[in-house]
Amino acid sequence: MAVATDLTSLPADVRARIELVAEKTGFVPNVFIALARRPDEFRAFVAYHDAVMERASGLTKAEREMIVVATSAAWDCPYCVVAHGAILRIRSKDPLLADYLATDYKRADVSPRQRAMLDYAVKLSVRPQDVEATDAERLHAAGFDDEDVWDIAAVVALFSLSNRLAHAHDIRPNPEFHTMGR
Amino acid sequence: MAVATDLTSLPADVRARIELVAEKTGFVPNVFIALARRPDEFRAFVAYHDAVMERASGLTKAEREMIVVATSAAWDCPYCVVAHGAILRIRSKDPLLADYLATDYKRADVSPRQRAMLDYAVKLSVRPQDVEATDAERLHAAGFDDEDVWDIAAVVALFSLSNRLAHAHDIRPNPEFHTMGR
Amino acid sequence: MAVATDLTSLPADVRARIELVAEKTGFVPNVFIALARRPDEFRAFVAYHDAVMERASGLTKAEREMIVVATSAAWDCPYCVVAHGAILRIRSKDPLLADYLATDYKRADVSPRQRAMLDYAVKLSVRPQDVEATDAERLHAAGFDDEDVWDIAAVVALFSLSNRLAHAHDIRPNPEFHTMGR
Amino acid sequence: MAVATDLTSLPADVRARIELVAEKTGFVPNVFIALARRPDEFRAFVAYHDAVMERASGLTKAEREMIVVATSAAWDCPYCVVAHGAILRIRSKDPLLADYLATDYKRADVSPRQRAMLDYAVKLSVRPQDVEATDAERLHAAGFDDEDVWDIAAVVALFSLSNRLAHAHDIRPNPEFHTMGR
Amino acid sequence: MAVATDLTSLPADVRARIELVAEKTGFVPNVFIALARRPDEFRAFVAYHDAVMERASGLTKAEREMIVVATSAAWDCPYCVVAHGAILRIRSKDPLLADYLATDYKRADVSPRQRAMLDYAVKLSVRPQDVEATDAERLHAAGFDDEDVWDIAAVVALFSLSNRLAHAHDIRPNPEFHTMGR
Amino acid sequence: MAVATDLTSLPADVRARIELVAEKTGFVPNVFIALARRPDEFRAFVAYHDAVMERASGLTKAEREMIVVATSAAWDCPYCVVAHGAILRIRSKDPLLADYLATDYKRADVSPRQRAMLDYAVKLSVRPQDVEATDAERLHAAGFDDEDVWDIAAVVALFSLSNRLAHAHDIRPNPEFHTMGR
Repeated sequence: MAVATDLTSLPADVRARIELVAEKTGFVPNVFIALARRPDEFRAFVAYHDAVMERASGLTKAEREMIVVATSAAWDCPYCVVAHGAILRIRSKDPLLADYLATDYKRADVSPRQRAMLDYAVKLSVRPQDVEATDAERLHAAGFDDEDVWDIAAVVALFSLSNRLAHAHDIRPNPEFHTMGR
Repeated sequence: MAVATDLTSLPADVRARIELVAEKTGFVPNVFIALARRPDEFRAFVAYHDAVMERASGLTKAEREMIVVATSAAWDCPYCVVAHGAILRIRSKDPLLADYLATDYKRADVSPRQRAMLDYAVKLSVRPQDVEATDAERLHAAGFDDEDVWDIAAVVALFSLSNRLAHAHDIRPNPEFHTMGR
Repeated sequence: MAVATDLTSLPADVRARIELVAEKTGFVPNVFIALARRPDEFRAFVAYHDAVMERASGLTKAEREMIVVATSAAWDCPYCVVAHGAILRIRSKDPLLADYLATDYKRADVSPRQRAMLDYAVKLSVRPQDVEATDAERLHAAGFDDEDVWDIAAVVALFSLSNRLAHAHDIRPNPEFHTMGR
Repeated sequence: MAVATDLTSLPADVRARIELVAEKTGFVPNVFIALARRPDEFRAFVAYHDAVMERASGLTKAEREMIVVATSAAWDCPYCVVAHGAILRIRSKDPLLADYLATDYKRADVSPRQRAMLDYAVKLSVRPQDVEATDAERLHAAGFDDEDVWDIAAVVALFSLSNRLAHAHDIRPNPEFHTMGR
Repeated sequence: MAVATDLTSLPADVRARIELVAEKTGFVPNVFIALARRPDEFRAFVAYHDAVMERASGLTKAEREMIVVATSAAWDCPYCVVAHGAILRIRSKDPLLADYLATDYKRADVSPRQRAMLDYAVKLSVRPQDVEATDAERLHAAGFDDEDVWDIAAVVALFSLSNRLAHAHDIRPNPEFHTMGR
Repeated sequence: MAVATDLTSLPADVRARIELVAEKTGFVPNVFIALARRPDEFRAFVAYHDAVMERASGLTKAEREMIVVATSAAWDCPYCVVAHGAILRIRSKDPLLADYLATDYKRADVSPRQRAMLDYAVKLSVRPQDVEATDAERLHAAGFDDEDVWDIAAVVALFSLSNRLAHAHDIRPNPEFHTMGR
């Protein structure tokens, strides 16, 4: 990935979104630079991201990031693991959790409810064809309702897309992400 | 999936899109009913779909459907294989190709260029972590330019999302898809 | 597979069998042409096939074809999936079932008894070393007796052979199979 | 497998075949006892076995047993590995070869031609869907003609069937096989 | 592995250990020749081996060899399977057990306690990341205390090392091992 | 792992070693506490570790830690990835490298020589049975001599042991490791 996108050449709405993130984060995350090459896909990705990650939900924002890190680790994705590991540290205020999810989510210090969430998420990400009605029942037994199950699945699905884009375009995490929130 | 969505209860833009498809196809594909439960996600999905599948591209629309069927078969996804198999039969005017892609894309009667496309697509879908620079080089050698490689990756990524939604929500192909274009 | 076998050059019994099938089906299925190259193996295969697929059994003929399609799908075998998918459509009078078994048998609309049968069959086909006494017990609990369990195993074993021959000799389904019984 | 078949209750031809083997080997191999439960399947199996394993071929009988042991090891099949390991020791006059094929055929002390044969055989047994025209070309380069390739595939296919029967019916090697030919 | 180590060139303690084994066994097992190339690693390996395999334990020495053979079979390691198969035959006084553990430990004629031990051992060897607290609980239910669980894990861990050294340096079993104890 | 080992209860040499590490590192790494439960195994492990990781070698100490992190990531081992990731950051003076090796070593910014080293190491760790003479040849072509190849294999083998102990005993990285060297 040899991207040298000049922000000024981007459509105004794409540029505005990137500048908003840059202001909040302090730098432009590389995934935005990479995806801006295709403004229509950029817009759709951002819309999907916001619809799933920003909506009011039975899952906290930290829990949604837990799903991102655990499933992205299953796909060996440096960008998603490192960048969302950073976001998770900030949202969870836990400096260690992301490193466990990045290596073996089963050893992470999470609640039984969160463990059930991660078991489902990793299964749906890695062996989606094996997900059956009993899996949703297990989530219900752990305290999730139908909307929560949908949310878990939506995060998994979106980052299945994201992992493949990051690998295909060899998107690398910005160095800042490695230390944020530690 | 026990969906009994009343179309009249949907937001106008979502309903309009569904009615447009229904008019063109003759029925409402089940994926639209399923996704309409979440209008924001519906809109983002449709926007992403159109950005990737409808854009002017070095890949024909039939080739993009070939990628959808071959990668969805790798994930054992009945909705995506059967519904997009139907679309592929129509777009390719080939009544047999989809059944090969649905079982073993390597035995499908395709051009060497298309074989290279499918090899890359299935690899990116199933083992994205193993995709490296040499894979794009192989596509270039087969006649694809950088924009084409992006398009292949975009189709793979979008349907990696789609396969997981279809499995999570147990979305079934409409019976009509099984026979369309045969 | 560039087979141009002249039927008249075949031994009389092999030729008679092929003509019998052709009369019944309306064409000569490609697997017969391929296997006729070795008359002794042809005879043994046909004898095995008839002993397993035609015998009086606690499994209906449609159920045996269900096993063939589901296990052949696990091995990505176009000939077996498409040709036996056609036979299944005819024997089950269900135009959709085969397409589910060809992609994900777990989502097929079958009885719990048939689901148990397919779970065992796919396990024996793909991970035979993991089959233990508890697997037969599960079949008994689903209503199968010892002879039925033998029948399921026999179908699986025969088509494990068949899948490998079809792949090794690149046997393709006749175009007619794609549409039969839809 | 709790088989207590009384040989005298078997059809005469099945019994005659078993007695012939018993005379030659000194005992009745358990696979014959197990399969005799179904005389028609017994006859078909024996006919297939003889057609493949006894025919004049570019492969020696020892080479065909090498394929049996290496592929059966890939499927963790005690009966096939131990019984055919014994036959291989006798036919090859090599007391060590079978133990290598039973653990890691790639470390067995075989000719480059035999290595190519085993590479193809294990691939066809374990990942038949990945066998393509280039695999046969590799065998041709190693000195095999089309009839030889057919023979290799036939042995693989027959013992793919056999491995599954042995696992399904839990057929155990007779103790004598463990020491024969050592 | 083209080793032609002259024993006289080895450090005295390494040589003494090798001569001790040779006296007891009747020959110098090839693994000692191979590892003696690095005296410090040789000493550490032997110390680890003795600490684990020779200590007073709730596991018999035969049971520890059962673990070695079953896990080494999972890694297709000819040296470990054949050499420790021989040791197992001698220690268990059972001439057949090792051949079952070398192909499919699940079909070996062992006690339920030993089956639990082997299930844990093979899981820890092949999928260590999936071992959780419930696995130790299963061992406790089968009659093992915490020290026994440690011993099982120690044998698995040591031979995970050993299997990789044997494969990396292509260490072959001495011919004598193939027939010892049969 | 509920370890509450009182250091004063340990044998003097074990205690001395632990105190030495604690002095150098600033804390007692949890692996030492866990392994001290078995002094003989502790001593053998430490001796093996020093023989492999501290010896004069064609591999730098940082390179040996690279192997530890990349192979431990393949086995999802939080202790080994996090603790040795910290050591690698210190030895390599590169704050980012460990995070790449912890997710996808193929995307790490390393020299072609180091890439060849890591390809071999991960293969030997995960699929040791597939390592053949050509793998060592590839290392020679990348500039490694026979002693270097031995060193790579020794690190892989030792940490294959270590990963399994860490998983079996659920050893967790000390919090300090997560931030060291960043």
